[in-house]
Amino acid sequence: MERLSIIVALDALGGNIEKVEKLARVLCGSVEGFKLGWPNLLPAGPRIGEAVRQACPQAMIIADLKLADIAYTMLQTAQHLPWADAVIAHSFLGVEGALDGLKEYLDKNNKKLVLVISMSHPGSREAIDPCLNRLINIARAVRPWGIVAPATRPWIIGIARRELGPHIKILSPGIGAQGAEPGTAIRNGADLEIIGRLITRSPNPEKIINKIKINYNKSNITNN
Amino acid sequence: MERLSIIVALDALGGNIEKVEKLARVLCGSVEGFKLGWPNLLPAGPRIGEAVRQACPQAMIIADLKLADIAYTMLQTAQHLPWADAVIAHSFLGVEGALDGLKEYLDKNNKKLVLVISMSHPGSREAIDPCLNRLINIARAVRPWGIVAPATRPWIIGIARRELGPHIKILSPGIGAQGAEPGTAIRNGADLEIIGRLITRSPNPEKIINKIKINYNKSNITNN
Repeated sequence: MERLSIIVALDALGGNIEKVEKLARVLCGSVEGFKLGWPNLLPAGPRIGEAVRQACPQAMIIADLKLADIAYTMLQTAQHLPWADAVIAHSFLGVEGALDGLKEYLDKNNKKLVLVISMSHPGSREAIDPCLNRLINIARAVRPWGIVAPATRPWIIGIARRELGPHIKILSPGIGAQGAEPGTAIRNGADLEIIGRLITRSPNPEKIINKIKINYNKSNITNN
Repeated sequence: MERLSIIVALDALGGNIEKVEKLARVLCGSVEGFKLGWPNLLPAGPRIGEAVRQACPQAMIIADLKLADIAYTMLQTAQHLPWADAVIAHSFLGVEGALDGLKEYLDKNNKKLVLVISMSHPGSREAIDPCLNRLINIARAVRPWGIVAPATRPWIIGIARRELGPHIKILSPGIGAQGAEPGTAIRNGADLEIIGRLITRSPNPEKIINKIKINYNKSNITNN
């Protein structure tokens, strides 16, 4: 089976290592990777990351920490993520004394940086989207591997692609529980769709993946 | 001994429960409280919060998560903090679908919300400070117990006080390792100074507290 351009957000499994491990094993090879955030890491600790790595060695594992602190504190946090291929932080932090240090640390440790430039909830229009130009400029200066832009306001994906060029990876949340249809983000120029509850809360996640595959095929979305 | 208006940031102790417990016991009664963030919570888990609570039952314990996600994910995270009196999140998230849900959850669980409206590092001038008016408006709408504004750019403390009124608590980081002198923030209108490495990296934290007390007295800073 070809891998779909999906990162599965494991948040809803709330630190249950057994469930996380089982799902990672079941979906291994059919999706691009998995995303672990604080709802898993706070109760279970970093070993939940190791569990995903063991369950699916070839997956891209993203530590979705939404890091949003000074460089010193972000580095103190990022050192506990040996199992992660990529780390998500917020672009609004700015470069000096924040993202400069984090980028340098992740580069040295052979990990990818992903910067949030817009979010999937409606409140993102209150302070984040009015700053979009500044946030894109910060991303341009930091040169992350990827950015996060929402499937719920897909024109932002288009702006990011135009401004940041063809090589940056665009990861897009907001699909399923948050309202956007699978395929929306990729049709608008994203590389990877982040899907959580639609998959993790299903009694049959493989069936959901197959449905999404049909949806992708209809939209002529090429799999990796 | 009167309690100084200080929250001790325990980040530099990096998840070492024994050290955190010992420091909380030594400083209990001489400072207002303690702040625990991801550098402690990621390696040690929520039990490090319980350890501080046991070491100093009367202290204000702040979970400095710098939460910066959609409401669903923040609630999934905040449920693991029974030991915390207050939780720090970012104002730039906006209200709808983010801070509205978090505020409601914390109110129900009798916990205080603290919103970051500006940060202590230089990069805060790149996207956060240009948005200050929007961020203050968001804080006004959410009605948190307190806000975070930096001692390194103390005029922001003054603006926040003027715009948000006399009752909101202003917590101020950036003192010590980040350059501002103890007393700077309070003289500019803050209620609590957040001090980390200056205290936690000292071989004699009590001596540092006494020095700060002398500094506060010189500035006529009233203790609680």
